[in-house]
Amino acid sequence: MRIDLQAPILARNEALAAANRHRLAANGVFALDVLASPGAGKTTAILATVDALRDRYRIAVIEGDVASRVDAEKVKEHGIPAVQINTGGACHLEADMISRALDALALDEIDLLIIENVGNLVCPTEFDLGQDSRVVVASVPEGHDKPLKYPGIFARAEAVLLNKCDTKPVFDFDEVEFRDAVARLNGAAPVFAMSAKTGDGVPEWAEWLSGRIQQTRRVT
Amino acid sequence: MRIDLQAPILARNEALAAANRHRLAANGVFALDVLASPGAGKTTAILATVDALRDRYRIAVIEGDVASRVDAEKVKEHGIPAVQINTGGACHLEADMISRALDALALDEIDLLIIENVGNLVCPTEFDLGQDSRVVVASVPEGHDKPLKYPGIFARAEAVLLNKCDTKPVFDFDEVEFRDAVARLNGAAPVFAMSAKTGDGVPEWAEWLSGRIQQTRRVT
Repeated sequence: MRIDLQAPILARNEALAAANRHRLAANGVFALDVLASPGAGKTTAILATVDALRDRYRIAVIEGDVASRVDAEKVKEHGIPAVQINTGGACHLEADMISRALDALALDEIDLLIIENVGNLVCPTEFDLGQDSRVVVASVPEGHDKPLKYPGIFARAEAVLLNKCDTKPVFDFDEVEFRDAVARLNGAAPVFAMSAKTGDGVPEWAEWLSGRIQQTRRVT
Repeated sequence: MRIDLQAPILARNEALAAANRHRLAANGVFALDVLASPGAGKTTAILATVDALRDRYRIAVIEGDVASRVDAEKVKEHGIPAVQINTGGACHLEADMISRALDALALDEIDLLIIENVGNLVCPTEFDLGQDSRVVVASVPEGHDKPLKYPGIFARAEAVLLNKCDTKPVFDFDEVEFRDAVARLNGAAPVFAMSAKTGDGVPEWAEWLSGRIQQTRRVT
């Protein structure tokens, strides 16, 4: 006998993700799931996005980590509502964790909900959270071969943020190879070269995200 | 009814890991499992370790990746036997994958087998491969808060390699905070600050590893 362990777990997650999606849409909330390796600069990229868009949208953040509250504290210091999820060992967020986090937020006072997933380029890929869009943050220090090694996550992202571009002088990073690898996996995804730390490239990414929010509002 | 999915999977893995450990010891092979985030510089650290120890030990490498053969090709170009495992989506290596990789190696011609696990700071932690030692590579660009966010892997590593120290001038990395966080999780683990690229700090790490190999040989 062979038991497929993954199918029922994913089916249950899909149902909960659909419920989250319905609840978010009913409250006019656009949800963005942000994926990356540990240390790619997700939190810094999220804070830069908040700064670029906080005059136009009311923003909240859900922080996913195996342990610690350091990211939620950083977001709160920025004056933005934040909920920390500690997965207690699990390598990705799941829809039921998001459902409980939504209970802790005033959804009718939020336009944009940014979800920072656990730092992991493999496990979060299969788990729908009910988001409207999913992006992956890669960073220059990780090297240009990451799309080759973790193709699933790059194939399914709507956009790719290439972060820490200010550190290019100290790394052997071939941006053409990186962009070619992304394009082979996912010809539709724009790649935004940026530095969340210096702010370079952030406006272009923020405009793309704002366009996605407006597009979703027109449809729903 | 609640089914514990993880316990039987881990129990089966433990049995296969024990068999690998027995087989490696019988052939006089010391096996090192190397864990890290994607892009922490595992492959470069492994090649620097090979260069430091190849006059003293016959070395082979098992490369674990979700996809691609780029790392095994790099190791082979270095003149070292290498086997590539592609997990096809799985986020960590398991003992049965190692068992099959061992079939492809001439174990009686190897003293040191270095296993590069999938880039992931969460999932590999629970899966024993039959290694003699496990180390984690962290890198300066990832930030000093990684031990707080991924405590399991730092708590269980025998040593920590802090890589890419040559890039410290361009990052806000607090090495004291990093070392304190590691020490709180794992007071016994030495932290080797190094740059696999420049070679700084590699000899200290290589001497530690050589000491571990000698210690294991004396015991078995």
